[in-house]
Amino acid sequence: MTTGPIRQKIGGKTAFPLFLPKGPTVSELCDFGLIGLAVMGENLALNVESRGYKVAVYNRTTSVTDDFIAGRAAGKQFVGCHTLEDLVKNLARPRKVMMMVKAGPAVDAVIDSLKPLLEPGDIIIDGGNTYYADTERRTKEVEAAGFLYSGTGVSGGEEGALKGPSMMPGGSPDSWPHLKPIFQAIAAKVGPNNDIPCCEWVGPRGAGHYVKMVHNGIEYGDMQLICEAYSMLKEGLGLSNDELYDVFAEWNKGDLDSYLIEITRDIFSVKDAASSSENGGQFMVDLVLDRAGAKGTGKWMSQLALDLGVPSTLVTEAVYARGLSARKDERVKASKVLKGPSPKYDGDKKQFIEQVRQALYASKIVSYAQGFVQLQAAAAEHDWPLNYGDCAMLWRGGCIIRAVFLDRIKEAFDKEPNLENLLLNSYFAGAVDQCQDAWRHVVSQAALLGIPVPAFYTALAYYDGFRRETLPANLLQSQRDYFGAHTYERVDKPRGEMFHTEWLDLRKEPS
Amino acid sequence: MTTGPIRQKIGGKTAFPLFLPKGPTVSELCDFGLIGLAVMGENLALNVESRGYKVAVYNRTTSVTDDFIAGRAAGKQFVGCHTLEDLVKNLARPRKVMMMVKAGPAVDAVIDSLKPLLEPGDIIIDGGNTYYADTERRTKEVEAAGFLYSGTGVSGGEEGALKGPSMMPGGSPDSWPHLKPIFQAIAAKVGPNNDIPCCEWVGPRGAGHYVKMVHNGIEYGDMQLICEAYSMLKEGLGLSNDELYDVFAEWNKGDLDSYLIEITRDIFSVKDAASSSENGGQFMVDLVLDRAGAKGTGKWMSQLALDLGVPSTLVTEAVYARGLSARKDERVKASKVLKGPSPKYDGDKKQFIEQVRQALYASKIVSYAQGFVQLQAAAAEHDWPLNYGDCAMLWRGGCIIRAVFLDRIKEAFDKEPNLENLLLNSYFAGAVDQCQDAWRHVVSQAALLGIPVPAFYTALAYYDGFRRETLPANLLQSQRDYFGAHTYERVDKPRGEMFHTEWLDLRKEPS
Repeated sequence: MTTGPIRQKIGGKTAFPLFLPKGPTVSELCDFGLIGLAVMGENLALNVESRGYKVAVYNRTTSVTDDFIAGRAAGKQFVGCHTLEDLVKNLARPRKVMMMVKAGPAVDAVIDSLKPLLEPGDIIIDGGNTYYADTERRTKEVEAAGFLYSGTGVSGGEEGALKGPSMMPGGSPDSWPHLKPIFQAIAAKVGPNNDIPCCEWVGPRGAGHYVKMVHNGIEYGDMQLICEAYSMLKEGLGLSNDELYDVFAEWNKGDLDSYLIEITRDIFSVKDAASSSENGGQFMVDLVLDRAGAKGTGKWMSQLALDLGVPSTLVTEAVYARGLSARKDERVKASKVLKGPSPKYDGDKKQFIEQVRQALYASKIVSYAQGFVQLQAAAAEHDWPLNYGDCAMLWRGGCIIRAVFLDRIKEAFDKEPNLENLLLNSYFAGAVDQCQDAWRHVVSQAALLGIPVPAFYTALAYYDGFRRETLPANLLQSQRDYFGAHTYERVDKPRGEMFHTEWLDLRKEPS
Repeated sequence: MTTGPIRQKIGGKTAFPLFLPKGPTVSELCDFGLIGLAVMGENLALNVESRGYKVAVYNRTTSVTDDFIAGRAAGKQFVGCHTLEDLVKNLARPRKVMMMVKAGPAVDAVIDSLKPLLEPGDIIIDGGNTYYADTERRTKEVEAAGFLYSGTGVSGGEEGALKGPSMMPGGSPDSWPHLKPIFQAIAAKVGPNNDIPCCEWVGPRGAGHYVKMVHNGIEYGDMQLICEAYSMLKEGLGLSNDELYDVFAEWNKGDLDSYLIEITRDIFSVKDAASSSENGGQFMVDLVLDRAGAKGTGKWMSQLALDLGVPSTLVTEAVYARGLSARKDERVKASKVLKGPSPKYDGDKKQFIEQVRQALYASKIVSYAQGFVQLQAAAAEHDWPLNYGDCAMLWRGGCIIRAVFLDRIKEAFDKEPNLENLLLNSYFAGAVDQCQDAWRHVVSQAALLGIPVPAFYTALAYYDGFRRETLPANLLQSQRDYFGAHTYERVDKPRGEMFHTEWLDLRKEPS
């Protein structure tokens, strides 16, 4: 039932019979429906309305809807609905209903409730952080029921949702023409004329949510790499927060120009505002406890990489690093037992800052290379015709990993759509080559100074492994054949022909 | 139906009515039943029989049973059975039926076929490489049907199965008294008098298969570390296979004394016996293709570590390293595009060999520390009362990771059963400390020489992260709070109290 300010919005009618004989006229119907008015949902609804669309909103807790309509939505083209029936009745066909609810069973519950209310061709959209396999399944189920479905990754946090997120829509291909005008209107814009929307069709079924997951996994890697650079500068060189501010401000002007570098710069300028705190006035970053949380997308990406057999080592080391940071009590205990060298670097300070920057840039390139390799492997497995250049451009604005750097990735895939690995592109191969002396120096110094840099390490190991025609896996295969008769291939025989050796019989008798 | 040589074994009877009025007399019944006569099953059956037990065997393909009975089992206390009914009828109660079949649906199929044939209190055993969660489920299902179940990890490959494997039994606790005499008789023996069986009750439901999985994951780490040591010695120092043989022979006499070091030594002595090959007479290891395979247990352990939030970085890097090795064609392509330094080390050769040994030993300690942390986390999650010292001793003989080193782990847990991390034990803390200068030198040289050592790297990163009271996750939490309002804890407030800062409002205005 609609009440209060909501009544005005829908013409004073307080109840509708099932087939709408006296419902809103077509011109009164809304263009877009949104379910779930937590902060992301509210902001996304406000964003859609601000582009000239009339929006119907619904939240399970009625008072949330009422508060929104009376508050942030006041005076705007919104219709607050107290039931899903109400919401559906207020939407023009084909209806576009976007769920911004907690990923998981709640999504299935909302879909089940919507199904009896919708008509063929109506579109259900999931804008949450959903596991892609759920979206694969739901697309099929919703399509089988005669409707269209879109699992759309949305990145950019609260502010992005309000002002222009990065959007990664997948699902039923037929949904896209209907969603495109609205989604591209609300999405972030990039390009010289600020007119290229960070929203393009990704692919069928769960492809949109998969690409969003890889975005998040790359974000894990970026953040961990920045933390390691911070460690090297703070512990190795003893830089103050003011000096760190200047370093990151400088870095944000070059190859590393990106949102995460920018906010890192900002963070080093923020002081504790809490007058109640005895530490009031101190730098905020020094008062934040070093226990990292995680929401699971980095973990998903790692687990799927392991299933696909692709080495996405950056995201995994980043997830593990968060896990180790969370074990604070054990670390405090260990810090009293386990020894290490002094972390002070005694070479040239300015030069080392530049070397750390290059280590960060080279590692970042490896991280993105791994992310795209995983996307390619997933696309092959699930038969998604992905456009990798488009993926890079979706992340160019609005989202957390937005960076100038993504233009180079777009160019690489434009040049060679089936590029197997970004490191094989001449621009990136050259960039890493230019950085590698500095990178190797920083990594070697981290080892000697005892500063933990798992992501710098694993990026370098990947680079050095990938560029090798021969790895020591010949010994590993020999071991497996020795103890388990697992067989092996030979360098001088066709691939796929398997051999076994009776190693124990042929070995030199131990003395 | 029994035929041929089998008939003699069961007293010439060729068919049995359902309730055995004329079946074998009690003294003729078998002590143990085994289903699945692939090489592991055959060898395990021969092992059981060799300890004085009478064994009934069954294989789905009848001719396999007949061939076994006529071949390797000839003249021994075996009964070959052509149906599961036959097998069950030939077993003394409570019946002990061990499945050695392919992990997965085949196990459920055999259980379903056995259920109508068994009587209350009979025991079904799964000796395959089963995913622990399947064993959790099956234990409950089989117990609900009135029988007992045991998921038993068996390690040691073909030879171990025949002569004495490491066995990790879990499942229904009531099964253990019945299985113990047989399992401890066939298991490997260790200790000064060679009388401590590498088989002890692990824990309820899937605990045995979980411990087996961690064994395999640690095996992945050990093998990768050995491969990286091999790389450093071969590429960095240019050692020949003869020299490598001597190095590993020497290493096998000290802290690293273990089966994997021993077979690595052996491998460097084996020459290609194939006279048909144009490369006949060359060292075998140089003819083995560097594409590693994997069977999945390392992947499982990694994925479960990610779910548990424990950083098992060694096994994961080892899995990823195998994945990278398998992408041979891409690596060959990349080797022509991507540059790197010369891998030649120009320091003292003998000293560097010793430093690599120490790097390997320190990394190995970290790897085992991680494995036991994961076991502890899994035990807490699943309510398994594990004895970690026992786990170490189960692996002391028979299995692939058997090593003198495990005695130290047993001692550490005997001293402190709830030890949170092996690195906090004084022996291991001291051992790593003694090695750390060499370890850091090797890691730093690997970075400078361009030799990929992902496991050495990640082990050192873990050590340096774990021993730190403060990690850079304060910056990471600040970033997460900045862009996503994820909130953070403060160093000066109680744990669990969450704060949020409006970073954007408080930041210094960018110039």
